[in-house]
Amino acid sequence: MPGQKFTVVFQPSGLRGKVADGVSILDAARELGAPLESVCGGKGTCGKCKIKIEEGYFAKYRVNSSLSSVETIKATPEKLISKRQFQHGYRLACQSRIHGDIVVFVPEESRQGQQVVRKEATERKIKLKPAVRKYYLELKPATLHNPLGDFERVQAALAERYKLGDLTIDYQALLKLQNTVRKSGWKLTVSVWKQQEIIDVEAGQSARGYGLAVDIGTTTVAGYLCDLTSGKVLATDAMMNPQVAYGEDLMSRIGYAAKAKDGLKKLQQVVIRGLNQIAARAAAKAGIKRAQIIDIAVVGNTCIHHLFLGIDPAQLGRSPFVPAIHHSVDVKARDLGLKIAAGAYVHVLPNEAGFVGADNVGVLIAEEPYNQDEMLLIIDIGTNGELILGNRKKLLSTSCATGPAFEGAEIRHGMRAAPGAIERVRIDPATKEVQFKVIGNERWNTEDKNIGARGICGSGIFDVAAQVFLTGIIDKSGRFNIKLKTPRFRVKDNGPEFVIAKAKETTIGHDIVICQKDIRAIQLAKGAMYCGAKIMMQKLGVDQLDRVILAGAFGSYIDKTSAAIIGLFPDCDPKRVYAVGNAAGDGARIALLNTDKRKEADVRARQVEYVELTVAPDFNMTFTRALAFPHQVDKFPHLKGLLPE
Amino acid sequence: MPGQKFTVVFQPSGLRGKVADGVSILDAARELGAPLESVCGGKGTCGKCKIKIEEGYFAKYRVNSSLSSVETIKATPEKLISKRQFQHGYRLACQSRIHGDIVVFVPEESRQGQQVVRKEATERKIKLKPAVRKYYLELKPATLHNPLGDFERVQAALAERYKLGDLTIDYQALLKLQNTVRKSGWKLTVSVWKQQEIIDVEAGQSARGYGLAVDIGTTTVAGYLCDLTSGKVLATDAMMNPQVAYGEDLMSRIGYAAKAKDGLKKLQQVVIRGLNQIAARAAAKAGIKRAQIIDIAVVGNTCIHHLFLGIDPAQLGRSPFVPAIHHSVDVKARDLGLKIAAGAYVHVLPNEAGFVGADNVGVLIAEEPYNQDEMLLIIDIGTNGELILGNRKKLLSTSCATGPAFEGAEIRHGMRAAPGAIERVRIDPATKEVQFKVIGNERWNTEDKNIGARGICGSGIFDVAAQVFLTGIIDKSGRFNIKLKTPRFRVKDNGPEFVIAKAKETTIGHDIVICQKDIRAIQLAKGAMYCGAKIMMQKLGVDQLDRVILAGAFGSYIDKTSAAIIGLFPDCDPKRVYAVGNAAGDGARIALLNTDKRKEADVRARQVEYVELTVAPDFNMTFTRALAFPHQVDKFPHLKGLLPE
Repeated sequence: MPGQKFTVVFQPSGLRGKVADGVSILDAARELGAPLESVCGGKGTCGKCKIKIEEGYFAKYRVNSSLSSVETIKATPEKLISKRQFQHGYRLACQSRIHGDIVVFVPEESRQGQQVVRKEATERKIKLKPAVRKYYLELKPATLHNPLGDFERVQAALAERYKLGDLTIDYQALLKLQNTVRKSGWKLTVSVWKQQEIIDVEAGQSARGYGLAVDIGTTTVAGYLCDLTSGKVLATDAMMNPQVAYGEDLMSRIGYAAKAKDGLKKLQQVVIRGLNQIAARAAAKAGIKRAQIIDIAVVGNTCIHHLFLGIDPAQLGRSPFVPAIHHSVDVKARDLGLKIAAGAYVHVLPNEAGFVGADNVGVLIAEEPYNQDEMLLIIDIGTNGELILGNRKKLLSTSCATGPAFEGAEIRHGMRAAPGAIERVRIDPATKEVQFKVIGNERWNTEDKNIGARGICGSGIFDVAAQVFLTGIIDKSGRFNIKLKTPRFRVKDNGPEFVIAKAKETTIGHDIVICQKDIRAIQLAKGAMYCGAKIMMQKLGVDQLDRVILAGAFGSYIDKTSAAIIGLFPDCDPKRVYAVGNAAGDGARIALLNTDKRKEADVRARQVEYVELTVAPDFNMTFTRALAFPHQVDKFPHLKGLLPE
Repeated sequence: MPGQKFTVVFQPSGLRGKVADGVSILDAARELGAPLESVCGGKGTCGKCKIKIEEGYFAKYRVNSSLSSVETIKATPEKLISKRQFQHGYRLACQSRIHGDIVVFVPEESRQGQQVVRKEATERKIKLKPAVRKYYLELKPATLHNPLGDFERVQAALAERYKLGDLTIDYQALLKLQNTVRKSGWKLTVSVWKQQEIIDVEAGQSARGYGLAVDIGTTTVAGYLCDLTSGKVLATDAMMNPQVAYGEDLMSRIGYAAKAKDGLKKLQQVVIRGLNQIAARAAAKAGIKRAQIIDIAVVGNTCIHHLFLGIDPAQLGRSPFVPAIHHSVDVKARDLGLKIAAGAYVHVLPNEAGFVGADNVGVLIAEEPYNQDEMLLIIDIGTNGELILGNRKKLLSTSCATGPAFEGAEIRHGMRAAPGAIERVRIDPATKEVQFKVIGNERWNTEDKNIGARGICGSGIFDVAAQVFLTGIIDKSGRFNIKLKTPRFRVKDNGPEFVIAKAKETTIGHDIVICQKDIRAIQLAKGAMYCGAKIMMQKLGVDQLDRVILAGAFGSYIDKTSAAIIGLFPDCDPKRVYAVGNAAGDGARIALLNTDKRKEADVRARQVEYVELTVAPDFNMTFTRALAFPHQVDKFPHLKGLLPE
């Protein structure tokens, strides 16, 4: 009945609460904050939100074979939920509507783990020229013979002492000016944005200014609280991008923004709320108040950029993929609902194109390929892959539909970088025995012990692919070697698979395997990257790369050799392959601390030529050839001795 | 009991509603919208909110002598409510707390009349150079080969077609950009503020831009909806300043802002809400939507300026009377809650000093004394009096505590310019018979008929004072001639009084008189003006005025001769005295239509030297001498033949 409310309990967490009649179990989990995976954003296609319904806890009768409290919206394909599982109450949470009190059991695999946010700030020398500077003033008190207004008094003092003329004042700063000057005996500190506008006033002396650099990734959000006067990172805080609950990939979110009621608003609100939390926690770590943050610089891909600003991303999802704006945006933090200093601005870096956003511009100003003579390839590995190729003469960029394989999605036992995720894998070429290492555990697993493996994360997937290829478990084309004789290899109904972790080594109660479909997903992802690099090289007439930079949230965790072996990029001297970590986040930090770099970003972003891969001649052939390990025809002289003959 | 609610009925209007236990009757009237006067803002000193409580309508018993449903906060002085009146249930509404169901009778005198807002726009030639201009664009649609962002596409077209470079875009305008360009087949009109910022985008062609010029007076608010492309006034709308309910004079409002819970916020909100109404009604009259208004210019005195912006006015109420800001303020309309075009700015004109505000600057740029050779005195008569003296060489300004006498307050039968207000008076020198004219009635009253007189408004008060002086009813010093033989003159307990309208000519059931106290109040008001002019003339070394300009809400309704006769200003050729109407409102209109005049306002406002009268030498003597009609010692060669010997 509409209007009715039912109690839902999530096990094993024990989280409970009431939800309205007809709400899906996935939405209920989101509402109550129960950790539950969802990759496809509730379309019923990824199968990650599988749960078991245990009705009758509150209800008076128990009929498992036809759950009376749960309505199935759309029949789930058998490959996701078998008939037998269905009879035992297994369902997809996104496809189940609640019509009664229920208990929901969330299996380990479906539990959204606490992400290990691997977005540390890299040590970089950044020239300091922040947008916001603080100035200390001692004013002469107003008298009947000198009844000059407070603002004009401040203005005159700024002109006299710091040669700052023609300043305006933010409305919110103006509102607190009078009390501020009088509270402190006419001594105050003003924060001036771009030598144009007074954005904050504080009583007395307050030398230090604080700013927040923010990298909003498709999957994770990281904030770096910086001292604007020293440039130091005082605190780092991060979280899952809360938008993930509304769709793991960008197209799902674009769809949610278009179709759900207030969809765009919700997607904006959750990320703003998240940023407010990050700002609060980072401020607490640094021992300051959130309201002392007087500047923010933000990067994110074009879609994230739009959602963050509340701009409809629909155009990014359809040809010709046009952003609402390329240029950097300065908007009052309060207009977005960001709770920092009331007069502060948010600086959002510019976008290059519909698929190459402000995050790539962050990479651009961090790595400065436009100042290099060498031919450089920068690969930003994230949920979306972006590539830059070139040097001081010319720069190209493109983006690839890598798919979420490197993030652990669309991989049978893929998962995010969370405790229990297998992140390193080595396979003995002779015995095919596997050693692996999980996040949260220092040592390698070699003794069939349970060290809490739950799945395989991005860096582990690179390793697995490279190792099964190197040890002949799969061939160049990605096919499993059916003749393989090892208990770890088997052929099931849905194809061959190789066991990475045995059931007893895991907390999920069954083997963690890599299957043919997984290998195909990895091939598509790496092939897209390679193909993108290749097409750009052809366009630029480049035969050999001088340097490759691997950037991205987990860029610095990737084994460079594994990446080279599977053919993530064309041949390059391994000594000239660098993993630089979160360069996009570094770019945000650089923009926060240096306004010259903001200008540089706006200029350079427009100079990078975006290459639309799908319209390139021979795209299909280039892509198909790139699917092989490491490539169907290309030579890799620098990998000589590493690759099988 | 806290939390309880009681029914209150106001008679004769019949307005009723429920209010919380303990609320004052004045607050209940404000809440329910019952018209009830209040001059002192609830301090219990003005006596204008006198009402009669008729308990028992809902209650079970009726004890008038000690009303059980009403608690008296502070004993009311007998001069405001006599013992006998008190026994009959008369109370001050502001001093009575509600503790039960009551019926309140509001006597005619205490009813707040519908103000006749006399703020028409004057015909003036204004050079057009508005801050916001509209540009029509036809864009080439985005394609895969030209996927330039929407904003950059607009930017490029503006640069190409209109040579407008380096524009930014307002955040709210950016949010609607994508849908706007696509809705209309890539044809759109953009509104650009100061050739800097795109503040609005509209689909298709929209040639006309609309702006609102606003004059917020202490008592009335007027809005002039203008066509920014032709300069024409399309519609005018006005209302009582809703802040009047919280105190008629500025000091009461400053007190309310300081002491009442959320006082400042309330005072700001009511005036913003009022402006939204004015904008909506003016837009409706002109046949446009409120959201089509793309610019607003506002004037008001310094206190009103602060309250409008939500700035604490406390400093304006205490020495050294310092405003928070002199300079003009440009603030996003949305930051103030004004519901016009989402990206529009509000331009608030600059203040000269703590008591000489943006309204006087409006007068300044309307009359341009700084471009004149003649020695000019501008008198802006409102609830607060402001004076400007000078010419192109130098300008002085000052403000006088005129008191509210000219607005009808502190005058026994004073009232605002509302229907029934006596606005013109002539007294026969021989018979001392009185002829008068009331607002809302075309003809003069000469036959003792009831033509609905309720009190005397500002222009009537000028006439009364001039007429009783000219006919010898009072002498030069303001004292009544005790020997006067006419039935209209009598001496009561509280002194002598002269009947202007007989009881039968009124709707209030008793004579409308002018008493000794009234004459004293008029003397104080006009003496303050004269004294201000005199001190400035002395400071500037000026003996003779070349021209006098009477400005102000009711400036054009004043009889110039009456004003000269009572000595509102030093001697001047009556032919060179001009009544220019609402020059402050004209100034707002000029600033709306011409940005050069905005700059001129900022520059000129700082060049006018504010004269603090109270610190002038001989202030006391100068003021005392100015109290006489027309002056104790000064000569008035230009009034020869008009004044008694």
